[in-house]
Formats: sequence, C-alpha cells, structure tokens
Amino acid sequence: MKVAFIGLGNMGGPMALNVGKAGHTLSVFDLSAEACRKYAAEGLSVADSAAAAVAGADAVVSMLPASRHVEALYLGEGGLMSQIAPGTLVIDSSTIAAATSRKLAEEGGKRGIAVIDAPVSGGTGGAVAGTLTFMVGGSEADLERARPLLEKMGANIFHAGGPGAGQTAKICNNMLLGVLMIGTSEAIALGVANGLDPKVLSEIMRRSSGGNWALEKYNPLPGVMETAPASKGYAGGFGTDLMLKDLGLAQENAAAVRAATPLGGLARNLYAAHSLAGHGGLDFSSVIKLVQPKSA
Amino acid sequence: MKVAFIGLGNMGGPMALNVGKAGHTLSVFDLSAEACRKYAAEGLSVADSAAAAVAGADAVVSMLPASRHVEALYLGEGGLMSQIAPGTLVIDSSTIAAATSRKLAEEGGKRGIAVIDAPVSGGTGGAVAGTLTFMVGGSEADLERARPLLEKMGANIFHAGGPGAGQTAKICNNMLLGVLMIGTSEAIALGVANGLDPKVLSEIMRRSSGGNWALEKYNPLPGVMETAPASKGYAGGFGTDLMLKDLGLAQENAAAVRAATPLGGLARNLYAAHSLAGHGGLDFSSVIKLVQPKSA
Amino acid sequence: MKVAFIGLGNMGGPMALNVGKAGHTLSVFDLSAEACRKYAAEGLSVADSAAAAVAGADAVVSMLPASRHVEALYLGEGGLMSQIAPGTLVIDSSTIAAATSRKLAEEGGKRGIAVIDAPVSGGTGGAVAGTLTFMVGGSEADLERARPLLEKMGANIFHAGGPGAGQTAKICNNMLLGVLMIGTSEAIALGVANGLDPKVLSEIMRRSSGGNWALEKYNPLPGVMETAPASKGYAGGFGTDLMLKDLGLAQENAAAVRAATPLGGLARNLYAAHSLAGHGGLDFSSVIKLVQPKSA
Amino acid sequence: MKVAFIGLGNMGGPMALNVGKAGHTLSVFDLSAEACRKYAAEGLSVADSAAAAVAGADAVVSMLPASRHVEALYLGEGGLMSQIAPGTLVIDSSTIAAATSRKLAEEGGKRGIAVIDAPVSGGTGGAVAGTLTFMVGGSEADLERARPLLEKMGANIFHAGGPGAGQTAKICNNMLLGVLMIGTSEAIALGVANGLDPKVLSEIMRRSSGGNWALEKYNPLPGVMETAPASKGYAGGFGTDLMLKDLGLAQENAAAVRAATPLGGLARNLYAAHSLAGHGGLDFSSVIKLVQPKSA
Repeated sequence: MKVAFIGLGNMGGPMALNVGKAGHTLSVFDLSAEACRKYAAEGLSVADSAAAAVAGADAVVSMLPASRHVEALYLGEGGLMSQIAPGTLVIDSSTIAAATSRKLAEEGGKRGIAVIDAPVSGGTGGAVAGTLTFMVGGSEADLERARPLLEKMGANIFHAGGPGAGQTAKICNNMLLGVLMIGTSEAIALGVANGLDPKVLSEIMRRSSGGNWALEKYNPLPGVMETAPASKGYAGGFGTDLMLKDLGLAQENAAAVRAATPLGGLARNLYAAHSLAGHGGLDFSSVIKLVQPKSA
Repeated sequence: MKVAFIGLGNMGGPMALNVGKAGHTLSVFDLSAEACRKYAAEGLSVADSAAAAVAGADAVVSMLPASRHVEALYLGEGGLMSQIAPGTLVIDSSTIAAATSRKLAEEGGKRGIAVIDAPVSGGTGGAVAGTLTFMVGGSEADLERARPLLEKMGANIFHAGGPGAGQTAKICNNMLLGVLMIGTSEAIALGVANGLDPKVLSEIMRRSSGGNWALEKYNPLPGVMETAPASKGYAGGFGTDLMLKDLGLAQENAAAVRAATPLGGLARNLYAAHSLAGHGGLDFSSVIKLVQPKSA
Repeated sequence: MKVAFIGLGNMGGPMALNVGKAGHTLSVFDLSAEACRKYAAEGLSVADSAAAAVAGADAVVSMLPASRHVEALYLGEGGLMSQIAPGTLVIDSSTIAAATSRKLAEEGGKRGIAVIDAPVSGGTGGAVAGTLTFMVGGSEADLERARPLLEKMGANIFHAGGPGAGQTAKICNNMLLGVLMIGTSEAIALGVANGLDPKVLSEIMRRSSGGNWALEKYNPLPGVMETAPASKGYAGGFGTDLMLKDLGLAQENAAAVRAATPLGGLARNLYAAHSLAGHGGLDFSSVIKLVQPKSA
Repeated sequence: MKVAFIGLGNMGGPMALNVGKAGHTLSVFDLSAEACRKYAAEGLSVADSAAAAVAGADAVVSMLPASRHVEALYLGEGGLMSQIAPGTLVIDSSTIAAATSRKLAEEGGKRGIAVIDAPVSGGTGGAVAGTLTFMVGGSEADLERARPLLEKMGANIFHAGGPGAGQTAKICNNMLLGVLMIGTSEAIALGVANGLDPKVLSEIMRRSSGGNWALEKYNPLPGVMETAPASKGYAGGFGTDLMLKDLGLAQENAAAVRAATPLGGLARNLYAAHSLAGHGGLDFSSVIKLVQPKSA
C-alpha cells in the first residue's frame, strides 16, 4: 500500500517513522524544509510538495497544528481535495474543530474520497513508541480500512461515531483531563497546607472516590511519582499550551452547541493564567504551581 | 470489650448494629427518642443518656451531623470529656471541621483519653454492609487499638496522619470527588450535545486520560450504568446536600489555611445552585441536570 | 446622500427607520421576505437584493446576526465587496468576531472601500429611540465620515481604535456587564438569604464600592426598581441568549489571543446553564434565578 | 460622654484619635504594648486593661481583627460583657462573622447592654480622614444613640437591618467589589491583548453598561488613573489579604445559609492564588497581574 504522510512535527514525524517501519511505501511532506531534511536523514522519502506526496497514494495521513492549516491543505484553491484520487482514504489525525472535520468529510464525500478524523492522545512518547490512542470519527467501514495503518501508530483505537465524532470525543476527554488535573492539584495542595503527607494523601484518594488518571499515572506534585513529569522538572509530557489549545477548542465547541461547561471553562482560563505567568512550555501538570505557595 | 455508640442516624445506626453483631457489649444513645426505639427494637441496649452510655466503656464511638453537635456532646459543660474514664479510646466518625477534631484530641490528651478522628466514606450502603472506608487522624498506636472495632464497620482503613488528618483527607477526597462528578457531567453533556452516544463516549474517556471514579462506578447519566443512582431516579447514594456540606467544610478549611481551590470552590457553589433548584435530596450525581437541556 | 441598509431584524429595522426619517435616500434589504414587507409597509424603499440595494449608494450600513452572515454577505463569491463602488463607506453594526471585522476592513482596503465596525449597545429600546451607543473600530477619518449617519441612530459614539477595535471594546464591555450582573445577583441573593431587605442592601452597595451599572439602572430582583425588566417579568431588555452569544464571542477572542478571563468564562457558562434551564428568552438579568431558591 | 476604645491597629488607632479630637473623655486599650505607647504619645489616655478602659464608660467602641478576638474580648470568662455596666452602648466595628455579631447582641440583650455591629469600609485613609462608611446592624434607636460618635469617624452611615445585618451588608458589598475588580481587570487585559488603548477602553466601559466603582475610582492598570494604588506600585489602599479575608467570610456565610455564589467563590480563590504568588501585601487591585503576561 502506498501511503502519503503530511505534517512531520513532534507528533507527525515519529508517527510517519512507525508507518515506514511497517513496510509501506511512504511519501512524506512538511512545509518546514528543516523537518523534511530531518526525516529524509531518517530514511523517509520526502516529496517536493503535498500534492506530489499524495500522487498515487492509497491512503493519506495528516497531522497538522490547527483547523486553519487543515483547511489550507485540503480545501483551499488547489487544495489536496482536488488532487487526491477518488477511492483514496484520508486519515486526518490533527486535533481541530469538529466542524472542520465534518466539512472535510463532506467535501470528500462529494468526490468519492473516504475521510475519517482520528485525533490522538498519548503525547510524543506514545507517538515514538507507537502506543497512541486514536479517537475516530467516520463510518465503521472506513475505520476498518484505516485500522491496519492506525495499529502501526497506536495501541488503542476507539470508534466515537460519525464524521467529527473523533474530535468531539477527544475534546470531551481532554476537557475532563484538564479539570481532573487542576482538581487533583487543589486537593493535594489543600492537604499539604494542612500538614498532610502528599504521598499518603494521594494514595488514599487514589483508592477512594477521588480516584482518577492523574493520581494513577501523572501525580502533579514533584516527588510523589518518580516517572511523572512533575518529578522531572515538568519536562516532556503534554505541554501547558497544548492543553490550553484543546480547552479552547472545547469552549469553541460549547459555544457552537450552547453547552454549559463551567468547570471546563474555568480550567481553560486557569491554564491561560498559568501560561501568562510564563509556564506555557512546561508539562500541563505544572498547573499545580497556581495553587501552591510561591516558594514551593 | 464494652463499647458505647452515640448517634444512631442513617449512618450511625447500621454501624452500631455491626459493632453489636461482633459480640461486643454495646450501649447506645441518640437524642432522638425515635431512633432509640428503632434500635432498641433491633436488639441494641439503649442507655438513658450519653453519659450513661459511656459509663464503664472501653471505647466510645460517635457519629454526629456537624461540628456543633460534636462540641456539644464532648466539650460543653457536663460534656462527655468530663464523664469518660482516663484510658478510654474515643473514635469520632463524624465528618466535621479538622479544627474541632484537633480540639477534641487536645482536650482528651489533657485527661488521658485517646481520641482519633475517623470519618467515613461509602454511604449508607457501606454502613449496612460493613464496607465503609475510614480515614483516620491520630497516633498510629491509637489507630491500632481502634482497628478491631473499625474492621467490624469498614473494609478500608487509611491512616492519614495526626489528629484532624482524617477529616482533612476526607474533605480533600470529597472536594476532588465533587469536581470529578461535575467535570464528568460536563464532558458527557458536551458529547451528547454534539450527537455522541453517551455510552460510547463514557467508555472512551474511562479508558483514556479522563478516567476517574465517576466513570468507573457512578456514571451520572441515566441509562449508562444500570447500578448507578442515575439509573434509579437519583435515589439512594450520597445526597446533594451532603456533598454540599462537605464542599462547604473544604472551603472553610481553605479559608483557614489560605489555600486556593478555584475548582473546589466553584463545585461548592454549583452544588448550592443545584440544591436551590430543588434537588438537594437527590443523589449528588444529579448535578448533571445543571448542564443539561431542561427537558432532558 | 444615498444609503443602503442591509438587515432589518429587531435592531436593524428601527435603525433603518431612523436613517430614513433623517431624509436620506434609503434602499433597504433583508433575506426575510416578511421583514421586507414589514418595512415596506413602514414606508421604506425595499430593493430586490442586497446587490440592488447597494447600487449607487454613498454609504452601506449592515446589521446581521453573526460572523457567518457578514462573511456571506460581503466576502463570498458575488459578495457585496465586488458590487460596492470604490469610495463608498461601509458601516457594519453587527456584533461579530473582531477577526471578521478586520478581514472585512482589509478586503475593503484593497478595493478603495472604507469599512468601519460599529457594533452597538442599548437594546431594541435604544434602536427605536435612536439612543444607541456605538463602539467604532476604524480610522478617525472614516469615523468622521460616518458620524452624521451614526448620530441619527445613536446618542453616544466612541472611537475604540483601528479595524476590529469596536468589536473588541463591545465584547470587553459586555463580558464585564455579564460578570457585573451575576455578581450583583449573588450579592443580593446572599443578603436576602440572611434576612436583609433587598432594597436597603441594593442602595447601600450602589453608594459604596460595590456600585455598578446593574445597581444603578437594572436591578435584577423584581420589585426593587420599577422600570427594570426584573419588575416586568424579565420581558424586553437584552435577552439571555444574546448575552450568551456575546460572552461566547469574548471567549473565542480570549482563546485567539491567549487571554485569561476566569470570571468572564464562568459567566458565559452560567448563562449557558440558565439558558438550558429554559430561560434563554428572558432578559439577561433573570440570571438571578440561578442563585435563588426555586420558589422565589 | 465617656468613651472606651479597644483595638488600636491601623484602623482603630486613627478612629480613636478622631473620637478624642471631638472632645469626648476617652480611655483606650490594645493588647499590643507598642500600640498603647504609640497612642499614648499621641495624647490618648491608655488604660491598663480592657476592663479598666470600659469602667464607667457610656459607650464602648471596638475594632479587632477577627471573630475569635471579639469573642475572646467580650464573651470569654471574665469577658467585657460581665464588666460593662447595663445601659452602656457597645459599637463593634470589627469585620467578623454575622453569627458572632448576633451572639454578642444577644448576650448584651440579656444584660441590658445595647450592642450594634458597625463594620466600616474606606480603608486607613478613610479612618484618618474620618470619612469611613459604616454599615450598621441593630435597632434604629441604638443606631441613633451611636450616630454622634459614628459621625466623628465616618461620612456615610447606613442602617442595614437588625443585629448582624451590618456584617452581612459589608460582606455582600465586598464580595461584589472583589468580583467587580477581577471582572474589570479581565476586561482591560483582554482589550490590551487585542491592541486597544486601556485608557480609551476604560473610558468607554465606564460610560457604558460595564460601568462600576473600579472604573470610576480605582482602575487596576498602572497609568490609567494617577491617584489609584495601581499607579503607585499598588501600595496603600486595601490589601489583597484583607480582601481575601472578607471573601472568606462571605463564603463562610454562604455555606451557613446554603447560598450559591459562584463568582464570589471564584473571586475568593483567585485572590488566594494571587496571595500565594506573593502578592498578599499589595493593594487588592493588583489582582490584574493574574491575568496579565508576566513581563507586564
């Protein structure tokens, strides 16, 4: 199978490498010449343009930063939608507005191009290890076509529903994650302010009704969990500004459907304050700083 | 061992029965004559007063609604502290301000009475089944003295730290739980507003980084989880007004130690709005109504 | 001067009538045939299309519901930008995203068409009475050209800055207003819950450091201020769903510039909850219901 | 008239001086020997104890930091309630829990001592200048008895209602003020992030429906208003930690009466975060830093 891969950033690059290792004929492209050189050096075949990359491809995978990049790539004048052959499968793994994913699927539908939205979670570590989680929007049949490729890049594949549903599932999940992380940070900070041992308190809550993913895998207080970003200076992991972007998408979506998300909205604005304080590049669990005494 | 048990409400009554079944000589009391009659009918030996109940007791267990009741029972003029013999162990399982628990322990210390705070989670179901979780504040030695009794009433016993730490651990946990439940409700409601199947979305988030106790055990949307209060008209479980009380204690504590808990504070006020709307008697997971269209 | 007016809704219709009364040659249009009939009956000259309305116009005024309508009117294929003669002045009074206003101004700039954004506050009452407040974005010179027309429709004209600044000023103001109204509602409800007389409390706060527009002009509690919507069943005024839209625009803008607006974001989500509870059509001051006992 | 004044802190000291200047026979006391020396040097007659100060007084004024100090002064064993002669008027100007004020009034009632709660706003500047605002709880007759004294210390005297109503009115007002200040800060910061001139935006909002006390008297952005604390390095004024205390009292009160105050609760927690970040000693308008880029 011939595969085109567009977008070789921190996530897309390692994902493309995993597809390449699986023995597919792969043609890749990125607007950044530097990214192209980097992955050419890793042995990938770099095309001269996105259009050249998709020529003759059975499947196209894209991994771009935001809605406007996806619109520009596929839908603008001379966009890929007019270059890709009917019958091709397009897997867009970018995290973007659900409305944009639906527009893409609709446009594909008119031309006989199958489109699924397949945003991921799992971070750059998961991208390298091929253990990402995919949340897929589109028809079941198209997901089955995509599955062999997705399995090269990820360990969990969820079918969320029709076009755009992958995006919606992801922002719902990440909005909840943003809330969990701040809520967990507040509970730990409150305990510490009362003199409790944070390891003891974290373990009690983990095994009680406060139990959640942050307490299981990603404790925000340095020293509680050796492998967590908190214990490594909040390096690596999932950056504050990426969480901020996802929470912004959730609020954009909430506005579009008139949903009420008071904690999700507050989480977005607290991450924004945390970013304004200069912590945008740190792992998102560093948000605990917002509720800790400064010297801590 | 002779045990006195003060406070025979929805929680205290079944807890006392479990202590009684274990073969201890038990003397119980409640200010409500009706409660006394009810548990006399269940075979418990009802004393004429709290003072009479504790006479000659090796251990005293109390389960009262709020700080002021605990202060009145133990610390007022003629309070139990002046009635209980030195060497006795006092286990206060009421959920109250940590400061009150510390005052009780201090007062006990002056008189050679060992005091631990041991608030519970697990609801009336756990009280009846003897599967409560105890979060204990006090010395390790006193906790070990109490353990045989606690094991008659509960399945999990955590040592949170010194006097008052049981209270702090409980309000930290319940504050986090209050946040998790609203955050989970918002995420599900947002997905539903976008046309997602709530069962599918709940399962995706449960297995992803949004995973938390509410998604595991207590989904707030009717029909997703058969055994959850949501699927039984929000009956039983842990009432909105009890959650509201615990979140109020958390804010009182946060004010006392100058902690910042933005999501915890908002959760308290959203439960208050939910209660004002007439839902104080429903299970606390009914808070999802606040973010659902009215007809839903 | 020949003026075209596009958009004859609850706001646009009365605004067009005021322009007409001032003696300008006026050609109007709305996509709704009903609206066209209504204002034809009021004596306005209705064109067959937007393009026909703007033919030969010295100035074009538009008043549309949302960004997408403005984009469709001016920027789409065959949009007005390609129909309007160079040298014409365009005054867009719609409340839309600042980014859309800037795009419009830029597009106009390429074609020699002067564009200002001039969103209004003051509600339908102000539209009828010609007492609206205009917040204008664009060059000072273009504002001076527009001033005679704006003065027919409004009483206050503020120059907020360059293109889009009118929109930004309006959403900043309305975000603050949304916050003021809920904050004032909470303060009054808290006082009432403590047994205070709401008139006395409102007057104390109005004359103290809690003083704000809501306490001056628009008390949210029925009976405190006879002329306020609260005392008329929350009819008329500025609807909850319109406030919800503006607060959504503010959050969209905050996401775009990475600003932190915790109270503004919470206000948006509380209005959303209020709307979901079935109050979207009531005046926005009815949000006090969210913090009142149900029977109140 | 013989007046006793207890509590010579930053507020109480200047208030006592103003009473002294008015020609009353004044006997003052403070637990701090340093404060006593300072006001002895200013010419006030310092008593050896609170009990000595109130001996023979027609009126007692107190100005203490918190509920526990007021309880200790008046209600403890040997407290002033047992020292003050029947018929005396007690004016407690401390900002404390309404419940404590009511307890004091009740205790006074039993002994024929008239008690009013009369917390103030206006800051140390107002205390020195004698321009404080008093919010009074108690009977109208007792307020009239107090009025001549209050007029020596303040410019505005409001009767809020029965015992405790002064406290409630004050925390309602200050909760609203806390909300206004953050809301105003957010609106200005959002405008600035969009390139607006903060002076222009502030003026537009001040004259529109966003108008409030902060925009009138106390703009939080340095440089907008020369006389505001913001333009003096946030020195003087009303400190962040004092606002934090008042917002904590408001939440304590809301918990006691089961009121919902989502913005008020969030404001408390945002001030707490601001204080944790090291800004507790700055004027409360410095909370704008929380929503500004760090370098700003």
